[in-house]
Amino acid sequence: MHIIEKKILNQIITTRPLESHKGNFGRVLTIGGNIQFGGAIIMATSAAVHCGAGLVTCATSMNNLTSLHTIVPEAMYIDYQSDFLLIDAITRADILLIGPGLGTDTTSLQILQTVLQNTSSQQLLIIDGSAISLISLHHEFFPLIKKIHPIFTPHQMEWERLSGIKISVQDDVKNTLFQQQLQSTVILKKHHTTIYHRDGSISKLQIGGPFMATGGMGDTLAGIIAGFLAQFKLKHYEHVIDAAVYTHSAIAKELSNNKYVVLPTDIINEIQRFMQENSGGI
Amino acid sequence: MHIIEKKILNQIITTRPLESHKGNFGRVLTIGGNIQFGGAIIMATSAAVHCGAGLVTCATSMNNLTSLHTIVPEAMYIDYQSDFLLIDAITRADILLIGPGLGTDTTSLQILQTVLQNTSSQQLLIIDGSAISLISLHHEFFPLIKKIHPIFTPHQMEWERLSGIKISVQDDVKNTLFQQQLQSTVILKKHHTTIYHRDGSISKLQIGGPFMATGGMGDTLAGIIAGFLAQFKLKHYEHVIDAAVYTHSAIAKELSNNKYVVLPTDIINEIQRFMQENSGGI
Amino acid sequence: MHIIEKKILNQIITTRPLESHKGNFGRVLTIGGNIQFGGAIIMATSAAVHCGAGLVTCATSMNNLTSLHTIVPEAMYIDYQSDFLLIDAITRADILLIGPGLGTDTTSLQILQTVLQNTSSQQLLIIDGSAISLISLHHEFFPLIKKIHPIFTPHQMEWERLSGIKISVQDDVKNTLFQQQLQSTVILKKHHTTIYHRDGSISKLQIGGPFMATGGMGDTLAGIIAGFLAQFKLKHYEHVIDAAVYTHSAIAKELSNNKYVVLPTDIINEIQRFMQENSGGI
Amino acid sequence: MHIIEKKILNQIITTRPLESHKGNFGRVLTIGGNIQFGGAIIMATSAAVHCGAGLVTCATSMNNLTSLHTIVPEAMYIDYQSDFLLIDAITRADILLIGPGLGTDTTSLQILQTVLQNTSSQQLLIIDGSAISLISLHHEFFPLIKKIHPIFTPHQMEWERLSGIKISVQDDVKNTLFQQQLQSTVILKKHHTTIYHRDGSISKLQIGGPFMATGGMGDTLAGIIAGFLAQFKLKHYEHVIDAAVYTHSAIAKELSNNKYVVLPTDIINEIQRFMQENSGGI
Repeated sequence: MHIIEKKILNQIITTRPLESHKGNFGRVLTIGGNIQFGGAIIMATSAAVHCGAGLVTCATSMNNLTSLHTIVPEAMYIDYQSDFLLIDAITRADILLIGPGLGTDTTSLQILQTVLQNTSSQQLLIIDGSAISLISLHHEFFPLIKKIHPIFTPHQMEWERLSGIKISVQDDVKNTLFQQQLQSTVILKKHHTTIYHRDGSISKLQIGGPFMATGGMGDTLAGIIAGFLAQFKLKHYEHVIDAAVYTHSAIAKELSNNKYVVLPTDIINEIQRFMQENSGGI
Repeated sequence: MHIIEKKILNQIITTRPLESHKGNFGRVLTIGGNIQFGGAIIMATSAAVHCGAGLVTCATSMNNLTSLHTIVPEAMYIDYQSDFLLIDAITRADILLIGPGLGTDTTSLQILQTVLQNTSSQQLLIIDGSAISLISLHHEFFPLIKKIHPIFTPHQMEWERLSGIKISVQDDVKNTLFQQQLQSTVILKKHHTTIYHRDGSISKLQIGGPFMATGGMGDTLAGIIAGFLAQFKLKHYEHVIDAAVYTHSAIAKELSNNKYVVLPTDIINEIQRFMQENSGGI
Repeated sequence: MHIIEKKILNQIITTRPLESHKGNFGRVLTIGGNIQFGGAIIMATSAAVHCGAGLVTCATSMNNLTSLHTIVPEAMYIDYQSDFLLIDAITRADILLIGPGLGTDTTSLQILQTVLQNTSSQQLLIIDGSAISLISLHHEFFPLIKKIHPIFTPHQMEWERLSGIKISVQDDVKNTLFQQQLQSTVILKKHHTTIYHRDGSISKLQIGGPFMATGGMGDTLAGIIAGFLAQFKLKHYEHVIDAAVYTHSAIAKELSNNKYVVLPTDIINEIQRFMQENSGGI
Repeated sequence: MHIIEKKILNQIITTRPLESHKGNFGRVLTIGGNIQFGGAIIMATSAAVHCGAGLVTCATSMNNLTSLHTIVPEAMYIDYQSDFLLIDAITRADILLIGPGLGTDTTSLQILQTVLQNTSSQQLLIIDGSAISLISLHHEFFPLIKKIHPIFTPHQMEWERLSGIKISVQDDVKNTLFQQQLQSTVILKKHHTTIYHRDGSISKLQIGGPFMATGGMGDTLAGIIAGFLAQFKLKHYEHVIDAAVYTHSAIAKELSNNKYVVLPTDIINEIQRFMQENSGGI
């Protein structure tokens, strides 16, 4: 187990090569946002854009089209109910994020299934929020999960649902055991967020705080992870994830000096500056 | 009768416990916003989010979905015309706020009735704006009111309608008499806002001013009260209400140094900073 | 003829009485914004809100509902195609503004007619943009105009259409003659905007400049006039209009130090600060 | 070949004549934005507005109406599927920009055809994004292109599609040959953007960088070119284009000091200030 330290930032967030174009910084596809939880996928999408992902498309409910474009006109849209468009978008993506505001009804389940069935092990998939709850109820997805090696971002209750390990008895030994069976990365969000990496290593975060305990915070973290993986895909995989998780909490920590509660949109507004201040040479 | 003083702030707005998550800071449900008055419920909802309520859902007209998400993507949405969704959301909420922009037609009345019938005395209900006017016309709701012990936030004309006490003769004695019959808290909004508490105490506000005399100001106050009650529910009930009312006017007072009129959205933008500057230890 | 000077500001923008509420600062109804020109009425409405009008309602196309609420949630909405709602709103308003983005088709004409027929001489009506063009084509409205004594805010081409006086020969003598026949105020927007008052006096503006030559600038001026008249209705009528016109250009002039072109929304964002900095005692 | 230098700015961005109105600064029509790529045309439109174009209309999908008005209420709207409205708007425009987010389906193609058939050689047409891809597939448009003398703004892959010259062998000699056959200006977007002017001269940009490698950056450039051509139409044509291209990258360069990636909307927010700081006398 090691503590994620600030120096990870300038190892990962390095100077971009001069001869590069948006294609070099990855195609992200975010999937989620039903009529009730549209803000979740919009915040995740906006976070990915602000990190510097090359191209970001949001697959969501038609109901969220206008608020998506108004908040982040840099992102593209597809209707997540169109199987044809969704599969096409999945195929083109380098990084996929499913879950923020997805919901847990039949439509949500069908979209999750389409994503799991069409994602290849060459792509990186982040599974967040409602998608974790759905998988907890549908163990028939486990074989697909083990093939794709996704990143799960549960909070403790979602991890209990997924792993069957009750919150009160969750510890590194039990968590690692289940995570290794899933052949996935698990980012367990809690007071000191812990990351169970696929290579068996464990990272712990010592920053962050209760000023982050507000709706949408996890969606934003998921978007930052997607944005980091998209553009830093040639870097050490585990370190990129650690850097993304650190960035999210470090920005919140900074903002908490002047804000009693830090909102997800506050964090998104600071990503570009924070990354520049903490970037290193090539 | 006592004057609300600034020191109430750091007694109520205290350091959050390290081991906490969004569930600890309450679930707020805001209900209102017909096609004509959508901005009112959006401002109330946004105020609750900016105060630091853990999870905020807005039950409103479908017409307001996109502007809600665009202004405050942190909030969730349900269609207030769906009885099924509304009752489910009521049941899950810790704090309910009904009234901003609700209107006074048959649909509004039916929604109000659903809320009153499904709210338990374990929950806290704030009744504002059009909902006060509706109750004034429907005394058959009084038994429910007395069971729920809500917080009413009328301006003087709405109080006249509710209590039957004409503005010209409203005074603490007469106001208290009716308020105690209602077994409710009454926040009477006027030049020096007065709060008639359930425990019989009376608090008066000496800050605020005519720079706040603009549409939407009351909706924003109601949202701040909801946000304070949601997260400070273990504190002394009457003091939390006093702190919320003080916060609203104190921010406006600060902003009035540089603005001839202070708009509700200006206040919302300053809540996080103001709370941090006026927070105290545990 | 006299030059409008800066000192008019602190004579008009005076300290608000302590015992006042939003009702004291007037009800404004803005009418306009078809599917093509929605931004115009939204900017006018937002300007009125930022000036400090007590309550502002926007009667516009259903297509503009969401952008209205998103930009200025403080404003209320009605569908301008509903005769019933429109007439009700007209009756309740103290100040009416018709024209920004209204368009010139049959629907526009019918709405204009409804407004002219239902506005009383006790109310103040501002006629801007497309509404001026429509009246130019429908002289049958002249008797109504003479009864209502509105404020027209034409640019030079619109004035040519309304008055029949070609731009090349427009001068104070000819302009006054026609304006007095109309029994209206005319604010002729041009390099040095000139105001032909109902009392026969003429005011000229010497500030402003070509950095204001951009779409939406006139809509914003109309909204500021509405907002000033709403709240300063006890002041000298001609002086309130002069102060509103001065405020609009003075803000633009300030901003032009740092902006090559000044956009309407830039001006709106500065109204509250500018008014505070230039306000006087009672 | 010459390098575009900073001094071009104050030669082009000169003091506006005092006696001017919005008509003097050009009518821009932007055309694009299907349901998937609405943000692209909104950013292009907003860029043109912020540059100071006199009047800007956006012809786009009905789906983008509300986000357009919310982001830039200064712009007007028409439904690009209405042939009647589109042709009318084309006829009235001084500058046209087609392509951002247009898409490549049958509807997109039909709109492109309507634009090419109704644009006269007296008007200036910028062809960007999907419109370039469509023309690459439809060489039957080449005669129209040669008549209109448009400005193409391809990135290297789009230029390969249009010209048939593979990226690996693109050089000034081959690029010029094809560009001169098209009788068009070609702005080839790459690490050091190169402009092949109609008069045979070649300009190169030495600023800009990989912090600009993000979706929407090209749409914003196209909007800036439109805005510059609209208001500086009496200046030397080639120099106006150079100044617009320089402005776009110079703002991004400035912002990159504090932002790891610079977003299109960041650039748009700085256009007015940058132009003022770099403006010269008449």
